Amino acid sequence: MSFDIESVRADFPILSREVNNRPLVYLDNGASAQKPRQVIDAITRAYEGEYANVHRGLHYLSNLATDKYEAVRGIIARFLNAPHEDEVIFSSGSTEAINLVSYAWAAPRLQPGDEIVLSVLEHHANIVPWHFLRERQGVVLKWVEPEADGSLPPEKVLAAVGPKTRLIAVTHMSNVTGTVVDVGAIARGTDVPVLVDGSQAAVHMPVDLSALGVDFYCITGHKLYGPSGSGAIWISRERQAEMRPFMGGGDMIRTVTRDAIDYADAPLKFEAGTPGIVNQIGLGAALEYLMDLGMENIAAHERNLRDYARTRLRELNWLQIQGDAPDKGAIFSMTMDGAHAHDVATILDKRGIAVRAGSHCAMPLMEFYGQTATARASFAMYNTKAEVDALIDGLQFSRELFA
Amino acid sequence: MSFDIESVRADFPILSREVNNRPLVYLDNGASAQKPRQVIDAITRAYEGEYANVHRGLHYLSNLATDKYEAVRGIIARFLNAPHEDEVIFSSGSTEAINLVSYAWAAPRLQPGDEIVLSVLEHHANIVPWHFLRERQGVVLKWVEPEADGSLPPEKVLAAVGPKTRLIAVTHMSNVTGTVVDVGAIARGTDVPVLVDGSQAAVHMPVDLSALGVDFYCITGHKLYGPSGSGAIWISRERQAEMRPFMGGGDMIRTVTRDAIDYADAPLKFEAGTPGIVNQIGLGAALEYLMDLGMENIAAHERNLRDYARTRLRELNWLQIQGDAPDKGAIFSMTMDGAHAHDVATILDKRGIAVRAGSHCAMPLMEFYGQTATARASFAMYNTKAEVDALIDGLQFSRELFA
Repeated sequence: MSFDIESVRADFPILSREVNNRPLVYLDNGASAQKPRQVIDAITRAYEGEYANVHRGLHYLSNLATDKYEAVRGIIARFLNAPHEDEVIFSSGSTEAINLVSYAWAAPRLQPGDEIVLSVLEHHANIVPWHFLRERQGVVLKWVEPEADGSLPPEKVLAAVGPKTRLIAVTHMSNVTGTVVDVGAIARGTDVPVLVDGSQAAVHMPVDLSALGVDFYCITGHKLYGPSGSGAIWISRERQAEMRPFMGGGDMIRTVTRDAIDYADAPLKFEAGTPGIVNQIGLGAALEYLMDLGMENIAAHERNLRDYARTRLRELNWLQIQGDAPDKGAIFSMTMDGAHAHDVATILDKRGIAVRAGSHCAMPLMEFYGQTATARASFAMYNTKAEVDALIDGLQFSRELFA
Repeated sequence: MSFDIESVRADFPILSREVNNRPLVYLDNGASAQKPRQVIDAITRAYEGEYANVHRGLHYLSNLATDKYEAVRGIIARFLNAPHEDEVIFSSGSTEAINLVSYAWAAPRLQPGDEIVLSVLEHHANIVPWHFLRERQGVVLKWVEPEADGSLPPEKVLAAVGPKTRLIAVTHMSNVTGTVVDVGAIARGTDVPVLVDGSQAAVHMPVDLSALGVDFYCITGHKLYGPSGSGAIWISRERQAEMRPFMGGGDMIRTVTRDAIDYADAPLKFEAGTPGIVNQIGLGAALEYLMDLGMENIAAHERNLRDYARTRLRELNWLQIQGDAPDKGAIFSMTMDGAHAHDVATILDKRGIAVRAGSHCAMPLMEFYGQTATARASFAMYNTKAEVDALIDGLQFSRELFA
């Protein structure tokens, strides 16, 4: 299937709406992406005719829902080229997934003085769970700074690894600068387990877990054009074997008595309670949609957008871009002389252009750039060069207002 | 608004479908309930035209989604008659909610030898999180058995409370026997904090948290005719003040640096990462729907169903019912001489009747009744006496097959 931008856009109902009497220009994809008709229809179809609780059902609807739900594990494995389907653990998103690793793998293993290496590029989801271990059990956080252009050379990360390093936690793509991190090179350079936050990367480029050689890789459904509360983390069998359960409840046990408990095998061991059944079915529809379009095609379209946006943004000499590495994703974090990021975002919104302003859940990176807030335009596969032009016009209008 | 069963049924698209060429008779509501058109439409409307990530957005769609999402906190507070809206914490369901209490309130407070009183009626969601504390930090679980008819006198629970009891964890309605527990009497009889699993009760009867006087009360959206991955827990301000965060990530912090972290105020402190935005919006639609019908009306309809089902089931002298207290909910756990519960469920399914067979995530209760599996028919507001008749016919057919 080839990538036709107009046909892609037509699949997303919200893209044809107006905001403030202007056509919506949605450039807040880094926070969350819009949903194609295929995903909305999958949700409706499930609730209208194929719904029941999953697992252990003996009736038709329960078996049907179980088949649809469990099939998503295979879809995710295919999307990420994961070696084994049963290494895919469903989650409600990256936050829950990384907390799973923190609580179930790291907390029972790490001793006071043990170190976790993480980058200053990280989103709070890949920071706060490790701060818990610092606060609660004396784990030491070792921070690796990016270069000024936002890039993060693998050797810089590897140089921070010492004899007490127990984990490297790093993003695959920054949600602020768009920096793409060569996580494969990091994994190849050390025996220390590597956790990768793929929340942004998996949306914008092909991910090949069989080649990367990392230990933990999480994705978040709502950024992947999928439903609220969907997501997964891939964890190698070796690391899964080292994990205790995280949440307790139904489905993750084999037997429970008053005095004892016997846990189910992975992946169910790590999936307590009634899962987000229809959310995950919707995520499956989203990933099928992406694979039909082809992640290579999507990445190529977004590279064109990035290059066009970069060229046009560089023409604005009163605008600063935080982090602009050559091979980054189509995410632009911006500040403007004499105007606060919040004001810029508000003015753009009046023209129907949705960007986010703030710290983007990445305060250490904001501090690194000496900012408290930036305005961020984050592009997705359905964005166009005309929307880049609208952004440029909006920024120029803001500039005139504040200059 | 009055309760008209035919108009209620018409709101649920799935109820008009057939299973195995018979009209669907859905009696697996204890596992999960079907969704009305109002909920499905709310989800579609959100994704088609009102979607963005919530909080800290400065653009129109983000503000709109935030308003719709945050309004659900008030709807839940109204549904439960909770004293304060900010005591409502969103969760993905009861399992996550009870794990929140276990990890964030109990784990840092309870010492080896401290006791948790819980009933043998509990669902695994209200058992396994406490087993973790037994396994990991020497907390002692004290079990209270129900009477033979499934009832659980509050004085029996209170008699188990001793000087080392730190928590009472009890269901408001058993998912196996339908037993309704007088949790208000338990709370009035002790100063020990009381956690109530309202996963079943809140679906079938009015809940008045301002009157009950408990400390923790959780509901689960998918059983409440709401979407997958929705739910909440109400926690009194006093108990919230004693809690540390559970999951770490965006939204639950005020500031994060490389060396320090400052947490947000409750309820955000306990809601890490992008939440289940549209799931909770759908839950809001479900609760509005229930309040429009009137929980008293729903309870009255289900009492009629219970009484009719009980009368008809008692005519079958080869059928045993596990737990049949007079004022229970319309949930019937059944075993049949000479037939395994799984076979009964399979035969009923051939006639379009969905019941669940197994241990119903309540193995200690199964053990109490000397069973490994039962067939469970659990009724909801949309079920009818004609469906009770269909169940009776199906059971008689099963009996003839196995006799």
